[in-house]
Amino acid sequence: MTSANRPLLLSNVRLADAHHGHDRQLVSVSVVGARIEAIGPNVAAPPDAIVEDGGGALLLPGFVEGHTHLDKTLWGRDWYVNEVGPNLTDRIANEREFRKSTGYDAGEQSLALSRAFLAAGTTRLRTHVDVDTDAGLRYLEGVLDTRDTLADVLDMQIVAFPQSGMLIRPGTDELLGNALAAGADVLGALDPALIDGDPVGSLDATFALAERYGKPIDIHLHEPGEIGAFTLKLLLDRVEALGMQGRVVVSHAFCLGALPEPTALLERVARLRVALLTSAPPSRPVPPLKRCRELGITILGGNDGIRDTWTPYGVPDMLERAMLIGMRYDLRRDDDLAVAFDCVSAAAASGCGFADYGLQPGARADLVLVDAQTVAHAVVARPARKLVMANGRIVARDGVLTNGV
Amino acid sequence: MTSANRPLLLSNVRLADAHHGHDRQLVSVSVVGARIEAIGPNVAAPPDAIVEDGGGALLLPGFVEGHTHLDKTLWGRDWYVNEVGPNLTDRIANEREFRKSTGYDAGEQSLALSRAFLAAGTTRLRTHVDVDTDAGLRYLEGVLDTRDTLADVLDMQIVAFPQSGMLIRPGTDELLGNALAAGADVLGALDPALIDGDPVGSLDATFALAERYGKPIDIHLHEPGEIGAFTLKLLLDRVEALGMQGRVVVSHAFCLGALPEPTALLERVARLRVALLTSAPPSRPVPPLKRCRELGITILGGNDGIRDTWTPYGVPDMLERAMLIGMRYDLRRDDDLAVAFDCVSAAAASGCGFADYGLQPGARADLVLVDAQTVAHAVVARPARKLVMANGRIVARDGVLTNGV
Repeated sequence: MTSANRPLLLSNVRLADAHHGHDRQLVSVSVVGARIEAIGPNVAAPPDAIVEDGGGALLLPGFVEGHTHLDKTLWGRDWYVNEVGPNLTDRIANEREFRKSTGYDAGEQSLALSRAFLAAGTTRLRTHVDVDTDAGLRYLEGVLDTRDTLADVLDMQIVAFPQSGMLIRPGTDELLGNALAAGADVLGALDPALIDGDPVGSLDATFALAERYGKPIDIHLHEPGEIGAFTLKLLLDRVEALGMQGRVVVSHAFCLGALPEPTALLERVARLRVALLTSAPPSRPVPPLKRCRELGITILGGNDGIRDTWTPYGVPDMLERAMLIGMRYDLRRDDDLAVAFDCVSAAAASGCGFADYGLQPGARADLVLVDAQTVAHAVVARPARKLVMANGRIVARDGVLTNGV
Repeated sequence: MTSANRPLLLSNVRLADAHHGHDRQLVSVSVVGARIEAIGPNVAAPPDAIVEDGGGALLLPGFVEGHTHLDKTLWGRDWYVNEVGPNLTDRIANEREFRKSTGYDAGEQSLALSRAFLAAGTTRLRTHVDVDTDAGLRYLEGVLDTRDTLADVLDMQIVAFPQSGMLIRPGTDELLGNALAAGADVLGALDPALIDGDPVGSLDATFALAERYGKPIDIHLHEPGEIGAFTLKLLLDRVEALGMQGRVVVSHAFCLGALPEPTALLERVARLRVALLTSAPPSRPVPPLKRCRELGITILGGNDGIRDTWTPYGVPDMLERAMLIGMRYDLRRDDDLAVAFDCVSAAAASGCGFADYGLQPGARADLVLVDAQTVAHAVVARPARKLVMANGRIVARDGVLTNGV
């Protein structure tokens, strides 16, 4: 990868506008160092700039993956024939055994999937990484290597995640602490009641660890209906008592899609600035997207696992995830599809805490060009990425990483 | 398009086998005229045959679209900015007005979408076509032109569909009769209670028309829960009384996904050989796929509308539809993903009544080659179609129609 980058003028691109169809003005973007310097119809080329003609393509900000599992993926490997049982615990045990017995290399696999994300326009990404008493920090080390390798172009947050449970596997809490000390940015957690078996004890341990290491929390909460709501209330109590407002993401939160009257709970989620993450699974209840946004809750999108021993589905393409979010919530109008796109762009950056995001001057220069007439069109058609710029560098053209990345 | 085709040997292809991963034997397929003559490891080239090397790709039967609306699509046109209201009646009225005011050309549009279906491997297709008192048979005429144009390669069934209601728009029943006389293969119907306002009257009129013209029925039943179940029971009564067993498809059937105990109703559906069609919408209840299959019900898949004034979603790719079916029903195992594929192949052919379907000798030579290791892999990865053969002719390579189609 080249080290310094010359200033660049990306000319002849169109800005999205959900309300005015496809008669929008052409603009240019000047990029100096890793930042957008200016954007608009009459932007001059910076001195010594390379000029890149955007050919009238639609300009989007780099995409944000809010929740994936880089350390589980089988992306690029031979097809894995899935014969796994139907329960969460079947999947957890099967995967632990698979990775142990095959010498699965989380470094190689996370790098393959990260590169595919980047080629498809994702420039910021939050990944959970399993930490357990079988594997210790082995997967974390692999993903840390990938983060180092791609540090100049892919902004990656790592969540230390107790996939096999925490309280039920003694020693896991210490490993999670070690993971945070070794470079993980966020403390993960998993189903305090239905996996760990002790919602109060599990949440107390999680919040204590987060406090000790000064880290935010991102919890997988699959617990359904009333039990999920019970756990969520316990979690909100601790956010409030410990001053963790704005520092907690609840991933999945299926319970919020299944309660007859979730409003009071949602209002409290909003007040405590807890963000919600959804992969918009079509076979599970999901938090009410529009109601959440009306209440001011940040709700972000993510793929969850991509082609692993859990699930054969998924591609590292946030436009496809936005499409699936749109379909799950039956979003058909252009202004509604812009909401689906927000879930994998600005809202995801906000929920994860990625700074300097967007298309305004001063933002990190993460840009994607696609041949589409509107954002809605880009979401449903998922066209090839003509150009991807990350942190001020052109990293991919026509879906293929450029030399050096 | 060339008129006669030389015999062909498609060599070096692999057959799908959900149970044995990717160590399957290579086979060849000989095609004479429009038919598969032989398939197996030691098939000889017929006299004067062209030999086509499949390069070890996976061989699939041509895909079957069980339910689409060729006469509504905006495929290939400028992006339509959707600002339509949320109700079924909003969408019906908006579309009727849109097509009326824009001079929408159902011939041109249905041809564009049919060609895209073919390039992506669909060789049999059932389309509903709107018949109403504003447009008369105008859309039908356009789709009939498309059917004629592609008659040598695409096997198309047309359903005469009262999209704006039948009883509530007097004169529609006569137009439906005219449509059947003019070449429509199947009589359509729409929500006898919630659109037509008279479930008994509407169903009686539909079955009377079907009987008069000797045609099967394919009804859109969006009616939810108990009202849908009520209408469905009335429909089954008429199937039984009029001897229409095996000649009725119920499309959508959301009600069957929302009843607390659907078994008795499903058993009756099975007994009367009524098939169910689902697009597997992630935001609506859906008939229970596995339970239906256990009971012997044919359940088939379809896209429903593709990029029209109703919905921005959809692509003419039955592998993607199979993927969406798989996701909707949370099918993760390889043997379950083979069921999702069945919904857009053999089960769809069976439900629609397309004859001579499959990969056995004597079947119509409709073949698709993809670079995938298994059927499950093909469904989730949706790889480019290396080769499509329809009715014994090569019609597309690498996703692009060949000269003459």
